[in-house]
Amino acid sequence: MDSQYVPTGIPGVDKALADQGIPRGHTILIAGGPGSGKTTFATQFLYKGATEYGEPAVYITLDEDPEDMKKNMSKFGWDLDQLEREKKLIFINVSPVRVGPTEKAGLVQLGMKEFKLIKLLEAIRTGIEQVQAKRVVIDPITIFTLQYPDETERIYAMRDLIADFRKTGCTNLLISELKGTGLEREHQFEEYLAQGVILLRTIIKGEKLVRMFQVAKMRGLAVDTQPRPYEITDDGIQVYPTLTVFQ
Amino acid sequence: MDSQYVPTGIPGVDKALADQGIPRGHTILIAGGPGSGKTTFATQFLYKGATEYGEPAVYITLDEDPEDMKKNMSKFGWDLDQLEREKKLIFINVSPVRVGPTEKAGLVQLGMKEFKLIKLLEAIRTGIEQVQAKRVVIDPITIFTLQYPDETERIYAMRDLIADFRKTGCTNLLISELKGTGLEREHQFEEYLAQGVILLRTIIKGEKLVRMFQVAKMRGLAVDTQPRPYEITDDGIQVYPTLTVFQ
Amino acid sequence: MDSQYVPTGIPGVDKALADQGIPRGHTILIAGGPGSGKTTFATQFLYKGATEYGEPAVYITLDEDPEDMKKNMSKFGWDLDQLEREKKLIFINVSPVRVGPTEKAGLVQLGMKEFKLIKLLEAIRTGIEQVQAKRVVIDPITIFTLQYPDETERIYAMRDLIADFRKTGCTNLLISELKGTGLEREHQFEEYLAQGVILLRTIIKGEKLVRMFQVAKMRGLAVDTQPRPYEITDDGIQVYPTLTVFQ
Amino acid sequence: MDSQYVPTGIPGVDKALADQGIPRGHTILIAGGPGSGKTTFATQFLYKGATEYGEPAVYITLDEDPEDMKKNMSKFGWDLDQLEREKKLIFINVSPVRVGPTEKAGLVQLGMKEFKLIKLLEAIRTGIEQVQAKRVVIDPITIFTLQYPDETERIYAMRDLIADFRKTGCTNLLISELKGTGLEREHQFEEYLAQGVILLRTIIKGEKLVRMFQVAKMRGLAVDTQPRPYEITDDGIQVYPTLTVFQ
Amino acid sequence: MDSQYVPTGIPGVDKALADQGIPRGHTILIAGGPGSGKTTFATQFLYKGATEYGEPAVYITLDEDPEDMKKNMSKFGWDLDQLEREKKLIFINVSPVRVGPTEKAGLVQLGMKEFKLIKLLEAIRTGIEQVQAKRVVIDPITIFTLQYPDETERIYAMRDLIADFRKTGCTNLLISELKGTGLEREHQFEEYLAQGVILLRTIIKGEKLVRMFQVAKMRGLAVDTQPRPYEITDDGIQVYPTLTVFQ
Amino acid sequence: MDSQYVPTGIPGVDKALADQGIPRGHTILIAGGPGSGKTTFATQFLYKGATEYGEPAVYITLDEDPEDMKKNMSKFGWDLDQLEREKKLIFINVSPVRVGPTEKAGLVQLGMKEFKLIKLLEAIRTGIEQVQAKRVVIDPITIFTLQYPDETERIYAMRDLIADFRKTGCTNLLISELKGTGLEREHQFEEYLAQGVILLRTIIKGEKLVRMFQVAKMRGLAVDTQPRPYEITDDGIQVYPTLTVFQ
Repeated sequence: MDSQYVPTGIPGVDKALADQGIPRGHTILIAGGPGSGKTTFATQFLYKGATEYGEPAVYITLDEDPEDMKKNMSKFGWDLDQLEREKKLIFINVSPVRVGPTEKAGLVQLGMKEFKLIKLLEAIRTGIEQVQAKRVVIDPITIFTLQYPDETERIYAMRDLIADFRKTGCTNLLISELKGTGLEREHQFEEYLAQGVILLRTIIKGEKLVRMFQVAKMRGLAVDTQPRPYEITDDGIQVYPTLTVFQ
Repeated sequence: MDSQYVPTGIPGVDKALADQGIPRGHTILIAGGPGSGKTTFATQFLYKGATEYGEPAVYITLDEDPEDMKKNMSKFGWDLDQLEREKKLIFINVSPVRVGPTEKAGLVQLGMKEFKLIKLLEAIRTGIEQVQAKRVVIDPITIFTLQYPDETERIYAMRDLIADFRKTGCTNLLISELKGTGLEREHQFEEYLAQGVILLRTIIKGEKLVRMFQVAKMRGLAVDTQPRPYEITDDGIQVYPTLTVFQ
Repeated sequence: MDSQYVPTGIPGVDKALADQGIPRGHTILIAGGPGSGKTTFATQFLYKGATEYGEPAVYITLDEDPEDMKKNMSKFGWDLDQLEREKKLIFINVSPVRVGPTEKAGLVQLGMKEFKLIKLLEAIRTGIEQVQAKRVVIDPITIFTLQYPDETERIYAMRDLIADFRKTGCTNLLISELKGTGLEREHQFEEYLAQGVILLRTIIKGEKLVRMFQVAKMRGLAVDTQPRPYEITDDGIQVYPTLTVFQ
Repeated sequence: MDSQYVPTGIPGVDKALADQGIPRGHTILIAGGPGSGKTTFATQFLYKGATEYGEPAVYITLDEDPEDMKKNMSKFGWDLDQLEREKKLIFINVSPVRVGPTEKAGLVQLGMKEFKLIKLLEAIRTGIEQVQAKRVVIDPITIFTLQYPDETERIYAMRDLIADFRKTGCTNLLISELKGTGLEREHQFEEYLAQGVILLRTIIKGEKLVRMFQVAKMRGLAVDTQPRPYEITDDGIQVYPTLTVFQ
Repeated sequence: MDSQYVPTGIPGVDKALADQGIPRGHTILIAGGPGSGKTTFATQFLYKGATEYGEPAVYITLDEDPEDMKKNMSKFGWDLDQLEREKKLIFINVSPVRVGPTEKAGLVQLGMKEFKLIKLLEAIRTGIEQVQAKRVVIDPITIFTLQYPDETERIYAMRDLIADFRKTGCTNLLISELKGTGLEREHQFEEYLAQGVILLRTIIKGEKLVRMFQVAKMRGLAVDTQPRPYEITDDGIQVYPTLTVFQ
Repeated sequence: MDSQYVPTGIPGVDKALADQGIPRGHTILIAGGPGSGKTTFATQFLYKGATEYGEPAVYITLDEDPEDMKKNMSKFGWDLDQLEREKKLIFINVSPVRVGPTEKAGLVQLGMKEFKLIKLLEAIRTGIEQVQAKRVVIDPITIFTLQYPDETERIYAMRDLIADFRKTGCTNLLISELKGTGLEREHQFEEYLAQGVILLRTIIKGEKLVRMFQVAKMRGLAVDTQPRPYEITDDGIQVYPTLTVFQ
């Protein structure tokens, strides 16, 4: 039977998550700036799940071509094509753009401004069924929320998405783009709706910029909420859960 | 007969409240960022009320499934299901979303954008009658205020809600989401309308982020308004009412 | 005959007001954040006026039930009910909400969005006549200005209110809610229209938050404009007019 | 014949103005926060002009009753009533509010929102003719600019006002309300249109707030633009043109 | 034949411009706050051009009467009337206001809101023809951009203006008003369109405000981009190109 | 056959790019303020590509006349005219302004507000075909995004542009204008859409402004993300990839 927590398999992260992982079935926001390694974090989560924990996965891209993404991730030594062939991973592109007939299977084709919640949910369900997925990533959720200029509708749409996710039993990551760079900032509404929030930011420490990992919120788990340094190494994300980032 | 003050039962909090508690019948805002323990604070207030002070309670959730919430809170050793069976606590879900027939009893079913003050008040009254409640929580109030894009109407709706609450005789917590992270901030309008405001924030102190509890306002009681450190321990919220957070 | 200045009777305040008080007939803004003691300041001003200086008073509440207010203020040892019975003080509730028939006398009943200047002025005049008042408080003025979303109309309405106040001969306090918490801030338009402005704020001094009283403006009187510490004691507001708040 | 510069007569100010004064015929903005002494500065300029330099004056009030103003100013020992009787000074109230028949002569009666440039110009010309004025004050100009919500029209209206002022040959002060309190701030559009700008602000220096006078701009004159401390004494504004306010 | 660079003749400026000057034919933004000496800088550029480098000039004023301007500048010992008589300089007033018949020649008369690009270009061309100008100033460009509330149209209009300027072969200064006072600021769109940007600002250095000159951008020339102190002396602008303003 | 990475040939930059260069086929944002050397960076990238790496190039200008640009760049010793004659480089001006018949070939003529994605794509394809280009620059992209005031459409248009670029196989630079000057800033939406982001900014270090180069994001490559000093020398951009900019 499934355990109550889902290990991420990312070095240092599970230690910060009370030596457990993400509470099973929760939807977690991975929020960071450009170049912070959000996609690397999410891919590593799925790759480790598929190869080490026997949990198949769905990666839903809203912004990047899956072939490009797989190529970019190959530098970490993760053979995503092989996982796809073994039906342990499926990439689904639900970009809301007009695309030509040469695009690969698994594509949901949508015109501009027609990209609605129902289509995204269909793609999620189809993907989960095809590989019996236990883990799902949506990258980035920003493209989805852009469809709803009205604030109330946007919040409801995100709530519905998370509620639907809850029913699938999968553990999910939503990639979210931080608006600004400072330590002091406005919260983004998704942070209140998701069951957990992991921030990937940078601060100046002495003569250097330092990458800073923080579990800002994790419902149902007593986590370490201190910011911790992390790096993007040749093997992917590496968090240092016992080091501090403030002088 | 009821005493004039309602002890929260949360370690360190009543000491900050002049060794008394919250003035009976008042509506208090619990405001904090994501992951600050607002829901833990509110649940602890109700749990302690029901188990130690003989005060039954209503927990109105506008954002989270009660089953999820109870599970998340179980890590603190609070058996909320047992309290429900003993009619000492009732959870009411008044989420303004379309929900299926498998949802549990106590649900007020509302379509999007139809979620109005009258429905929320009905839910509150029904809940109070069912368990003869003395304590009520609404979590989060943000979902309610979102219904009123016009500022004046929003303030009136919140005033009406608090005025109605006043008539029930219950002592109430409204969970409120802080917009930003800095010490310097804009006040949110609810802070002026509620009879008390408790802030749950964080600051950087030396090498660490420190959680900071502050009773910013408490009508009718001479309280300690200094910020004090707090933690979320295995037993719930713990405030340290004699320690300082600055320097 | 009336003297030219009206002593507040609040310890330390009159010393900051050139050992005099507020210029008679002026309308003063008392501006502060939630929990800053604005209502305590205003009540103390009226209580001292009625009990020590023979000046009856009108307290117009726009936000809080007078019974609640009197109860909250009773902790300072001020018997407001007794003053009401002696016709030295009258509370008038002009909340712009629908209220039931059990509300007490002195109430001006208004529907939402019908709350206009003329009604407020009628309430003021009625109150002044009933007790031959010399002092008036409106708490908070924010509810009044909310009626005027257009900036020009809002400023005109406030000007008319202050001009009308001027004709009554009473000395008046308008309770105003500060938008933000920082020392650097945008001025609120009322500060330019009122004849005086007293700010109740907080700053961090060493290891503590310190309450900070400041007479920012007082037409017709050479006042001490330095910020001075204040406390809310068991006897009400206490200003320390010879201490400094910086470093 | 008139000299090229108009001495203000305010202690310390003419020294900061290259030992000269304001270039004759220029329109200068006096900008400061509430309580900064803007009205005192302007009245002192007119009083000194009328009593020491033989220059009659017009004081146009848009916000305050002239009787109140004269009373408030009497604490500095300036007998403005006497100057009025001697036809050396005239107060004109062009407040855009409905006023009763008991108001004093010199009043331009306007309904709300009917207050336009043409009326203000008429009042200015009438006043100048009556006393053969050489100096004019408008206090505050904010009430005038409020009539023009469109930015372009507002700037044109202010340009027209200043151009018209130029033709009268008078030296003029426009009282302007600063929006915020910080040293770093957005410029207000009037600062670019006026021929000179004098700022009255405050900064924290050591343990105290210090009032800070600064000639930010003075076309046609090489002025001292360093901020200098000033006080509001029993005799009015006193600038200390050789002291520094920083460090 | 014309050399490739146009010396400004302003002490210290040409040294900061790689000992050359402004690239011939370029349009440079002179941006500063009120009182920063923008008009002095521009007049000095034209005066030196006409008297020392044999380059006639056109000064287009959008905000100030040319007679006033010439008078204000006379304090630097620049006889602009003489230059006008010698046909080495022409002032053109294209203020978008109604003006009377007594205004001097060279005036383009425009009603409010009718001030368009085509009229400004006509004025420029007429002026250039009359004196065979090599240098042109528009002071301030803000009045021009105000005509275009739509951001895209405003940028296009400014691009067209600069492109047209390019065809005249003249070297041009556009006077631009900075919105705020801080070192950290939003860029104004003109800074990207102009071929060069010179900033005139102030910073606090020790006990004083110091004026700070900076060549932020100069296409086609390797310039010194360090901020340098400057003063407004009896002879006009003086930049100190080897001194520093920080520390 | 083409290698996987494209060396920029700019001193110090390829070292910061993992001793490789830009991943082939990616679209990189070059973002900086006015005068930061964005155009120099892009031209140097194309010049080095054409002269040292055998990669022909297309430079699409949206803001500046190609002749001006070539002249401005000539100071670095880059003979762009010669490259054009050798069919190794082509400049295409797609400025959305009305232009006369004397403009040079390669011009796409557009009326105001008619400048759409399709026209830009046509210009790109035409240019690539003419020189068999491997590198493309668009300078600046801001003019393109201005066409789309609606945020969602703007993001879609940029996504489509980048997706189309991807199909050409070329490696591309998009010149982007930073809105503000501070280290703490709001991210611009293009930073999330581009496959890489290089920032060209300045900070104050000791007594000087220092230019600061930073690879903020580079998909598919483990890069050095530390800010590094750079200069604009007589030979173009020079990055110092082993020096630090902080402290």
